[in-house]
Amino acid sequence: MGEHPRTLTVDDAMTRALELAVRGPAHGPNPRVGCVLLGPPPGATLPDGAAPGSIDPHPRPVLAEGWHRGAGTPHAEAAALADARARGVDVASATAVVTLEPCAHTGRTGPCADALVAAGVAEVVLAVDDPNPVATGGAHRLRAAGVRVVRGLRAAEGEELLRVWLTAVRRGTPYVTLKTATTLDGYVAAQDGTSRWITGPAAREHAHRVRAEVDAIVVGTGTLLADDPELTARVPTHGSSHEAASAARLAEHQPLRVVVGLRGIPPAARVRGEGGELVHVLTRDVGEVLERLAEREVRHVLVEGGPTLATAFLAAGAVDELHAYVAPVLLGGGRRAVDGLGVATIADAHRFRTVEVRRVGDDALVVSRKSTEGRVG
Amino acid sequence: MGEHPRTLTVDDAMTRALELAVRGPAHGPNPRVGCVLLGPPPGATLPDGAAPGSIDPHPRPVLAEGWHRGAGTPHAEAAALADARARGVDVASATAVVTLEPCAHTGRTGPCADALVAAGVAEVVLAVDDPNPVATGGAHRLRAAGVRVVRGLRAAEGEELLRVWLTAVRRGTPYVTLKTATTLDGYVAAQDGTSRWITGPAAREHAHRVRAEVDAIVVGTGTLLADDPELTARVPTHGSSHEAASAARLAEHQPLRVVVGLRGIPPAARVRGEGGELVHVLTRDVGEVLERLAEREVRHVLVEGGPTLATAFLAAGAVDELHAYVAPVLLGGGRRAVDGLGVATIADAHRFRTVEVRRVGDDALVVSRKSTEGRVG
Repeated sequence: MGEHPRTLTVDDAMTRALELAVRGPAHGPNPRVGCVLLGPPPGATLPDGAAPGSIDPHPRPVLAEGWHRGAGTPHAEAAALADARARGVDVASATAVVTLEPCAHTGRTGPCADALVAAGVAEVVLAVDDPNPVATGGAHRLRAAGVRVVRGLRAAEGEELLRVWLTAVRRGTPYVTLKTATTLDGYVAAQDGTSRWITGPAAREHAHRVRAEVDAIVVGTGTLLADDPELTARVPTHGSSHEAASAARLAEHQPLRVVVGLRGIPPAARVRGEGGELVHVLTRDVGEVLERLAEREVRHVLVEGGPTLATAFLAAGAVDELHAYVAPVLLGGGRRAVDGLGVATIADAHRFRTVEVRRVGDDALVVSRKSTEGRVG
Repeated sequence: MGEHPRTLTVDDAMTRALELAVRGPAHGPNPRVGCVLLGPPPGATLPDGAAPGSIDPHPRPVLAEGWHRGAGTPHAEAAALADARARGVDVASATAVVTLEPCAHTGRTGPCADALVAAGVAEVVLAVDDPNPVATGGAHRLRAAGVRVVRGLRAAEGEELLRVWLTAVRRGTPYVTLKTATTLDGYVAAQDGTSRWITGPAAREHAHRVRAEVDAIVVGTGTLLADDPELTARVPTHGSSHEAASAARLAEHQPLRVVVGLRGIPPAARVRGEGGELVHVLTRDVGEVLERLAEREVRHVLVEGGPTLATAFLAAGAVDELHAYVAPVLLGGGRRAVDGLGVATIADAHRFRTVEVRRVGDDALVVSRKSTEGRVG
């Protein structure tokens, strides 16, 4: 419950629903979804299957709204219906404006399509079709019950919001973000192995914020044994210095800690300490790692290295997004971030599409995505 | 001549003078300087040697203004005095607000200090002292003639504007900018030597704009023989595609083309074509290259590679600024941008201070400067 806008057009209600969706967590097995319930249209209603461009342009009263707060909590539609009940508002003949096609299956909660039908909703306007094989069919189920369905309103914005989740669900394996932190000449450590610090405190803090938004962090046993990392997501406590990352408190969400490789994890390894669940995947095969994580409903994996693992993921074509932190430092030799990709000529280079270039403290962050990623789905 | 503000305080006149200075060329042996002539102070005048903080806060009429347009043309003060004459304005008892200490020597033009005295100027307010050993002494000369001098108004802004020139003149050798264009993992070419293209057309266009602002471009004979570059500054012609850089027209200013190394320049080399003067420095010694260029009054050198030359300049500690264009590409092997710096441990890394991080097309540009550069002078 709480304050919400008093009247909105259907189009503006979708903007609002997208904003509500963002309030949900970026991590977790479920997508971020928002829903706004509008009063019935003032005049003649639109025909079933009408194009998004022909939606009713008149403002209508906002009856209720909701968003999904993560696995185990109500879906956005159910949250909006609960909000209506709490307000004592009748939603008969209402229009439900929702960012993702209402589900048709009973998972941790009942099917949203049925709940909307039971509540007497007359019309559903949605942005993105649900690609989840077990949840799809909601629009069909609504229509069968006599509810008008309009699909694809603000579809591009809905797709962008759900990019990671949609990629993972459509493909059946997690979305993979590879993180590198290098000098301008591509090294992660000097010749003697020393590397503290190449990138600065602001970059490390930024990387911790990213950890708190993914489902799993993956490292190889080589990195585990060499660096003994905690693999936790930490947020700076008030007044704590940037440098004291270990003094910062644990973030609310801790990603799964995944160690890949055939060597054992020492009993005293810091990765066994406070933080997310520890999983050791006894393989060197990238495909197998991703399948094992998909079975756990992991949607977003952050690969943090080292060079062997990064190279394996790149060579397998398994990297969807690259977070490259680059420090204004030159070493001219040392341990490289990526090695032995087998690229012989420039035409075979692994090319990404730049999404964002920003300064983070004294370092640059280049965010790029697989060049073909725009064609997924 | 032309429109100028009607009244300004001394402080705002310095802002205006700094703006005027920027109209001059970034390249060339002379600094960029601006000058504004203000009417006499309304009341009591300040004592000689007054601190910048105690300058007269009242707006006064702007009598004239001028800026330096490059070697062989009048200095800013002379240009402002000429502007006054052209307007028929009397500058007796005026205040000259100028970004750099008026010169005291006869070079291509006469001493500005004498010209200001002859014109009857009563007060000179300046931002930056002239470090040029042959031109310094202007303030002393003015005072000896009874002109009040206030130094250091907006000195930090004046220093930043003249950063390249001041560094070169104070040190006696050119300011060195090293350009690199690499993949995210630090390569300039694949294993088979192919490199077209790593960075994109926007980055190449940006690099041509930088060429048009420096005095000299330096490459090694290795790069000359391998790539046969033109080493010209080109600007896109209207309607020409980004890719057709060779179809773009030559920029108005062409930097000196400097080839460093012991091998000869082939008679048919493209570097012998239309463009800046060609200079072959028969040495591998970085210090000798810089001395030879200093003799030619070169203030700003752009080192464009390849790896051998870049490494030599870095190893000599001769790089003041780094322009690193980074493409969202990974090669995992190939020809490195920098090699064999002899850095064994992270504490000895060549560290720069980031000045700017920006996106240029699909690439990132990281501009950084020598960490100690702030301490120069």
